[in-house]
Order: sequence, then structure tokens, then C-alpha cells
Amino acid sequence: ARPRVGYFYTGKTSAQLLTEKIRQIQVKEYLSMPVLVQEDATVYDAICTMFLEDVGTLFVVNKHSKLAGVLSRKDLLRASMGNQDLNSIPVSIIMTRMPNITVCSKEDLLVEVAEKLIDKQIDALPVIKNSTDEDAFEVIGRITKTNITKALVDFSGDAII
Amino acid sequence: ARPRVGYFYTGKTSAQLLTEKIRQIQVKEYLSMPVLVQEDATVYDAICTMFLEDVGTLFVVNKHSKLAGVLSRKDLLRASMGNQDLNSIPVSIIMTRMPNITVCSKEDLLVEVAEKLIDKQIDALPVIKNSTDEDAFEVIGRITKTNITKALVDFSGDAII
Repeated sequence: ARPRVGYFYTGKTSAQLLTEKIRQIQVKEYLSMPVLVQEDATVYDAICTMFLEDVGTLFVVNKHSKLAGVLSRKDLLRASMGNQDLNSIPVSIIMTRMPNITVCSKEDLLVEVAEKLIDKQIDALPVIKNSTDEDAFEVIGRITKTNITKALVDFSGDAII
Repeated sequence: ARPRVGYFYTGKTSAQLLTEKIRQIQVKEYLSMPVLVQEDATVYDAICTMFLEDVGTLFVVNKHSKLAGVLSRKDLLRASMGNQDLNSIPVSIIMTRMPNITVCSKEDLLVEVAEKLIDKQIDALPVIKNSTDEDAFEVIGRITKTNITKALVDFSGDAII
């Protein structure tokens, strides 16, 4: 006999389920792996890492592997414009530093992160392990406008079903 | 007498209306202004324009003001890494050229543009005036992952109502 397959009535329309999904979706469902550089790496090294890993944002960690800073493509472009030797400048000179970094956790809502990316005019947030100690944030992920764009594509795909 | 205000029953749930909105929303509702540079501008000029206008992608136009190329932050960073005089290199050397440029029109669906941004691994698309002549695309806008992120925030706001 053929197996019984098909749709099952859940008591909710697919549209209702979609709306709930947008509101409830968490960072952990869409995050990417973080790309890290050490605080004493040079700007030249950081640019090479950015190209090799093909990311738009790098996170800088200190010798205890805790979050120390963030480097955007814009930061690196600005640095490379000056007539400086990129091999002699450490990233710690040009990065955005703690506590001026907006972070999020795996359990945060994706829509809240999207709002922060817009409000702060940045491309990515580090996802950190829950901690109350600002000096000891451990970076476990990266969430970017690319991840948010993927989420929208997924939602619209659900909608068409 | 106080005016009669309140909700009106449209026969559809707000969730259904939201789903339809995600599927139907067009590029023209979220596009930004394009930032253009001339084909004979130097890489140095382009980097300055990118910082002044605070955008991640520039569109290059020819002397007839038609789309000739696209410049990303990544293109400019790559160029600035080489030990070259940025004032002596025209952008036409480093830009992505027609016909290798993905474009969209004002009437395209935002979710389709979001899919293209993901598939092609790019940050922005030029919005062009409808034309069948590839050599004569007129750039009328810019649509980026930032615009898509804003759309998601708007949808989730609708959802909460």
C-alpha cells in the first residue's frame, strides 16, 4: 500500500505560522562562524584575512581570546588610504574597541538584531556567549545583513507554499 | 460627537495581509538613491566619494550617463593594497563591467532581489530604468542588503500590531 502523505490541519493558517516565525526567530538559527584576528596582528594581515575568508567584518580578540574590537571593511579601507606601512600598524590602532561594540547573544531575536544593524549603521554584530563581564566576552558567531537577507528569502519561500 | 474610530474587519487576518505584503513588495518601496562616478574618475576619487556618501557600492557611468560598471568596497580595498598610485588609476580598470552586472527594475519583487544578492554574493544591485538595450541602462536607484534588512524590520513591526 502507498504511504499516507499530505497536509495535516494544525488549526493555524500558514500565514499565521509565518508571522509567528518572523517574530520568534532567534539569532542562533541564522548566525555564521566568526572570523577572528589577534590584537597584535597588523592591518596588512587583517586585510589578507578578510579577503581569504571573504567576510566584511573581523572580530579582534586579546591574548585571553576575549573580544577586544571590531574591524569593518571601511576601517581597513580608511587605513590603507593613508600613506602608511600597513605591515607596521597593529589592528588595535584602527579597530572599534570595547565598550563601544554592540553585541548580541544566540537567544536574541533576529528582528532585534536587524534593528540594531540599521540604527547603528553597521554590517555585522558579534554573537557572544552569555556573560555579565564586559571584559570577558567570548565570540561564538557573527550575524550580518547577509544573514538577515537570507532570513527574508526563507520567509518568502514559506509564504509561497 | 466623537468621531467613530477603530478597526474595520476586512475579511482577512493581519497575518494573511503580512504574508501577501512580503510576496508583493516591490523594489521601488525600498530603494535608495544611487551614487555615481564617471568612468574616467580615479580610484582615489572613488574611495573619497564612497566615504563622503557613506555607501558600500558605487555605480560607474560612461560619458552618456549610462551604466558602465560597479565598484564595491572590496574592489577598492584590493586596489589600495597594491603599491600603486591611486591617483593615476581610473576606476574603469578595477570595476566589474557590463554585461557582468546584475541589475533590477523598480517593479521587481524585493524578495527576488534578495535572492540575487545572496546567489551572486554581492551587496547591492543598481536599479535601472526599463530598457532592452544593455548598452543604455540608466541608473535610477540602488538596492542593498541594508534596504532588505529595513524591510524585515518593517514586516516584523506590522506583525506585532
